[in-house]
Formats: sequence, C-alpha cells, structure tokens
Amino acid sequence: HLVDPYIQELKLNIEQIEKGGYEHFMLKEIYEQPTVIKDTYRGRLLADSGILKLGGLEDHISKFTNANRIIIVACGTSWHAGLVAEYIFEDLARIPVEVEYASEFRYRNPIITEKDVVIAISQSGETADTLAAIKLAKQKGAFVYGICNVVGSTISRETHSGTYTHAGPEIGVASTKAFTTQITVLTMIALRLAKQKGTISQSDYMLHLRELDMIPDKVAEALKSDEKIKVIADVFKDSSNFLYLGRGYNFPVALEGALKLKEISYIHAEGYPAAEMKHGPIALIDEHMPVVVIAINSNHYEKVVSNIQEIKSRKGKIIAVVTEGDTVVKEMADYVMEVPKTPESLTPLVTTIPLQLLSYHIAVMLERNVDQPRNLAKSVTVE
Amino acid sequence: HLVDPYIQELKLNIEQIEKGGYEHFMLKEIYEQPTVIKDTYRGRLLADSGILKLGGLEDHISKFTNANRIIIVACGTSWHAGLVAEYIFEDLARIPVEVEYASEFRYRNPIITEKDVVIAISQSGETADTLAAIKLAKQKGAFVYGICNVVGSTISRETHSGTYTHAGPEIGVASTKAFTTQITVLTMIALRLAKQKGTISQSDYMLHLRELDMIPDKVAEALKSDEKIKVIADVFKDSSNFLYLGRGYNFPVALEGALKLKEISYIHAEGYPAAEMKHGPIALIDEHMPVVVIAINSNHYEKVVSNIQEIKSRKGKIIAVVTEGDTVVKEMADYVMEVPKTPESLTPLVTTIPLQLLSYHIAVMLERNVDQPRNLAKSVTVE
Repeated sequence: HLVDPYIQELKLNIEQIEKGGYEHFMLKEIYEQPTVIKDTYRGRLLADSGILKLGGLEDHISKFTNANRIIIVACGTSWHAGLVAEYIFEDLARIPVEVEYASEFRYRNPIITEKDVVIAISQSGETADTLAAIKLAKQKGAFVYGICNVVGSTISRETHSGTYTHAGPEIGVASTKAFTTQITVLTMIALRLAKQKGTISQSDYMLHLRELDMIPDKVAEALKSDEKIKVIADVFKDSSNFLYLGRGYNFPVALEGALKLKEISYIHAEGYPAAEMKHGPIALIDEHMPVVVIAINSNHYEKVVSNIQEIKSRKGKIIAVVTEGDTVVKEMADYVMEVPKTPESLTPLVTTIPLQLLSYHIAVMLERNVDQPRNLAKSVTVE
Repeated sequence: HLVDPYIQELKLNIEQIEKGGYEHFMLKEIYEQPTVIKDTYRGRLLADSGILKLGGLEDHISKFTNANRIIIVACGTSWHAGLVAEYIFEDLARIPVEVEYASEFRYRNPIITEKDVVIAISQSGETADTLAAIKLAKQKGAFVYGICNVVGSTISRETHSGTYTHAGPEIGVASTKAFTTQITVLTMIALRLAKQKGTISQSDYMLHLRELDMIPDKVAEALKSDEKIKVIADVFKDSSNFLYLGRGYNFPVALEGALKLKEISYIHAEGYPAAEMKHGPIALIDEHMPVVVIAINSNHYEKVVSNIQEIKSRKGKIIAVVTEGDTVVKEMADYVMEVPKTPESLTPLVTTIPLQLLSYHIAVMLERNVDQPRNLAKSVTVE
C-alpha cells in the first residue's frame, strides 16, 4: 500500500530563514560581526607575516602620505566611524584629519585643494549628501577615496579608489556590522599609512596587526554578555532619557551608542565627550537619568572614574562598559558590561558591541519595530 | 516744629541693585547684549572709515595669514563660539579651521606644529582643560591666541597674544553675553584676516563692517520678541525633550540653544545639524516633541523648509526662528520668533537671542534656580 504522506508545514517564511533563526535582522547582524570583520580582513591582513595590503590603497598611497589633510565626509553612523578614524589616523599616521557632516561640508564653501584627500564613508554607497560632497571635492581637485559596503554602488563608482567593507547585506535600518567593518577598514588604512610614513615602530606595527587579528574573537567574547545586558535593558527600558559618555577613541562610540538607542527605541539618548559633562549636561543628572559610561582601561581611566563619582553624587545611575577584570569602576557602577582587553586604538571595535545589544534589547522590550524603526530609511537618498 | 521724618525702606538688596531691576542676572545679561557688543567694537571698529583694528592681532597678523591651520580649543559654550568661527574663518579668510574640545585635544597626541595657530576661547580665562591645551600647544611651538572676558585671567596671561571680549562681569552660570561677544571678536578677526589676505572684496568687506555696526540695534530689535517668546515658553514648558536644528552658520547656534535649555531648565534638549535628522533623530519625533528650527533666509532655506515638512508630517511641533517678513515658514510652523535680516555670516549674533529668552522663560516658569543651576559651576577649574 501507499505510504500516507505526512506533511509538516514549516512555520518559517523566507524572511525568517534569512534571519538565520534570530528574531530580528539587527540581532543577526550584531552576531555576524566576528565573521564579517574577519571577511573584511580576508586577502588583506596576514598578521603573522606582517602583511597588510588594501588593493585600492596601494596604487595611491603617496596621495595619502603627501596629503596636507584628510577630510572625512559622511552622515549618521558612518560619520561616527569617521570620528573614530580621526583619532587613529592622527595618532598612528600623523596626518591631520577633519571630519565633516557631508550635508554641512557641501554647502559651506569648504577649503579643499589637490593636496587634500577626501574619504567618503557610506554603507549603501547611495547617501545623497555624501555623494554631493564627493562631486564637490572632485571639482576642487581632491583625491577621493570611498569606503562602502554595497559593491557597485554610486559612491563606489564616483570615487577615485576605495576599499569595500565586507559586511554582507545589512537589512536592519540601524547600522551595526557596517559600522564595525568601516572602523576595521579605516584602522587598516591608518596602519598601512603609519607603516609607509614610518610613524609607527616595527614592533608596534606588528603588535597592532596581531591585535587586529584577535578582534573577531574578542567581539565574539563581548557578545557573550548578551544575557547580562538583557537584565540591564529590563531595568532601564522605561527611562525617558539616557546620556552616553566616552573619551578619546570612545567618545565617538558614545555618540554611536546613543544614536542606536534613539533610532530603534525612540528614547532620547545623547552622547557627549565625558569631560564636557561639567559644561552643561551634568545639570540633567538626577535619580531618573541613566548614564552609560565607557570606562575601559585607557589614558583617561582616572578622569572617567572621577566623572562617574560626580554622576553618582548626583544620584545618576551608572551603566559602565569596563575592561574584563576591572575592579574600581565595578565597585562604583550600578551595572557593568565587560569587554576584553585590546590596545586603546582598537577598543571601539569591542566597546560598540554591548551598546548595540543594550539598544536592541530595550527596543524589543518596548515592542518597537526594531528592523524598520518609524520615520527612518535604510539609505538616505534624498538631501 | 521739627519735620517728622518719614522713612521709606527700599526693598532692594545689593544683589537686586546689581541686577538693575531684572529678576535674574541672566536676564540682565541677555538684555545687556546690544551694549556689550558695542563695547567690544569700541576702539576697534570704525565701520564708515573701513577701519577694523584689534591690538593683539596687528602685531602677529602674519602668524595667522601664514598658518597651515587654525585650531580652536574650548569647552562648552565657548566651543560653540568656536564652531561658528570655523564657518566664518573658512568662508571669509580661507584658512582651514579645526575646532576641538579642549579636553579631547590635550589627551590625544594632536598634530600641532609651529605653522599652526591655536585660538583658545574661555569666558573666565580659567577653564582647566583649555589651559592645559594651551600649554601643550605652546610646547609644540604653536602660536597661541586667547579670547577671554576676564582681564588678567590665567589664559590671557598664558597666551602669546589675544583679544578681550568686553562683556563685563557675567554672573549667570549659563553664558549669554560672553557667547555673543566671543562671536563678535571672532568675526572681527576673520574679517581682518580676510582683508589682509585679499580673500574678500573691498565692497564685501565694507558691507560686512557696516552690517557689524548695525548688529547691536538688531540684537535690541530681536529682544523685543520677549513677550511673544514668553507665550511660547508657557506652551512648551512641560515638554520633557526638545530638538534644536540649524544648518551652516546656525548649526552651532542650535547646539548652543539646546545647551542653554539643558543648563537652566534641566529639560533634555539636543542640537543637530538639520540634515542629520534623517540619519536617526527623526525617529524621536512624535506629537510630544517640540523642535526648534532656525529657518532664516539663507543658502539652506529650502532644505530647512523641507525638514520642517518632514517634522510636521510626523506631528512634531515646530518653533521656528525666522527672518522678519518671512511668510513660508510662518505658515507651516506652530510658533515663530522673528529676527532682523543680516548677512548670513552674522546671523548667529541675532538668532541666538530668541533661544536665550526661550530657555530663560521656561526655566523661570519651572521655578529653576536660573542664575545658579544645579550641579554647574560658572568657571570649570577642574579637569
């Protein structure tokens, strides 16, 4: 006799399959970061051999090493990646960097010459204001370098050269893996230029390459705090405001952390360089104000500790991002999120992770449309 | 017979006399702006004769005209004055400008050489981070120029040269007249350099001097909206959040407007360059979110009008700063605050005024300690 067919309907649609079992694209993309950072290294970084090679850069490296200034133009999250790059380019490669909102740059009769290099950063490669800034820079004779994620996008075609991030398709409107791979590319460029200019010692260069190589594992390690961060999210999900503070390399990370929370939870979060708090924002602090402080081991550790004390003495609630094994901040903070130790110049790649997860869990608990937040488009193709 | 003495006790204490009849120092200082801007011109600007002379600048003018870059270091409100200066220096004098938080600059191994000019801005002349940045810049061989209000202050002594703002004592912790006189000085420096470098035509130079000369009257004109602004303050005083948007020269004014509200009302207000709204902050907008938009006649007028439409279509409430006689924005906005027409490069001096008054009235209505807001010090002498 015939076998009676038993049909089990899989309750999955294409979208869910593409989400790979994650509840949202954003969460999937957060978790993809160890892999896509590694993908962004592939064929470019061979840490043990001291090899760092970016196809688009090698042919034009003298443009960069002879540049008067590097001007970075971008919008939104990409602008934050540019701010991180300002620190690493100036610190390691000793080239003056100016980071501009593309929308401001293009309208303000900016000073650009053939001696300047313009770096344009855009996940989609279609951001209208960034594209307009590129056209202006080209008219003025500058060499324009693109950092995009979407292969063949308009910006990747309009620039003189560039490097792709290998983040893969980013579906969530709030950018996560695009941001960390942008920083990855910018860090590689800075190191390559530092090596070429001789502004980094061979041993420091090798150290950085090896540490870069370990970043995917450290990002994976940082992701393990997910359950702990969910608990923190639950405590603070009903707060109507947040402050995010960081210094140095982690000042832009504070801005980006605040932007993530704004975008997907609709909570008003604002980022600030920690030392500016005393010049105004500290007036906001009372028992209702959670303050996310990036307080990793760094140059600024003690200063940030004293910022935390000021906040605590005004009854603010502290959620701190700390280095694994930290004891001082852990004592003072209400909650901590740990990240593995890495050289200060690479810390944005790990400190970003818990802030992404915090925003994500708060937004989910508030039942927001995480992947498609209200009012926002993935690619801003209008000016 | 003797005259029976009738003694009427004046119910005024010294402080009230010093407040000159105003309820708070801050309000007095807001109203002093026409006078102190004029004081800041005195002996320096003779518009009709085309004379613009700043004692501290004349002897060192070649340092500026030969500079690779001007790096402005400051904190808080002074940092916002620096951002305004970036626009006017680059626009008129064609010298690349980089504006840095003093606290960030000093810790990040910045690139400074003898070919750079560093301008340090501080009302008190005692700001610890700014002072530390000056010391670093001097070590690196840069020429350092100070813009302070307090005569004989540490920063005025530690810099190679400088120009005083003549704002008189500023008692209110939230800076008002110091800010507008800082912009006044920076504008004069930019015009003097533009003239020296030949980057401004003689007719445009004369026009700017004459327009500068009219600024005190235009500020006085802007102050006349006070009663109208009080009505707006009453409508929005219970809002828990505000956004402030501006573009170009008025992007820093948006930041400063938001900072004022934060400082004295403890309402979480955040400033943004208007075009960045689409890259995140627009997610915050709903019927509870008042948005203050600087929408004066300028290069960006149409773009800002379209930002206003986007906000309206998401039910945000618009409070717009418009040019006298504006009709388009007036139709769309929920409330408008008018300022007199002036060239775009001088608009920050007038658009700032209604934002100061709005913050002031909201804070008074909320019964805040306007002159001495919680947690804040007038002069931040700790790092």
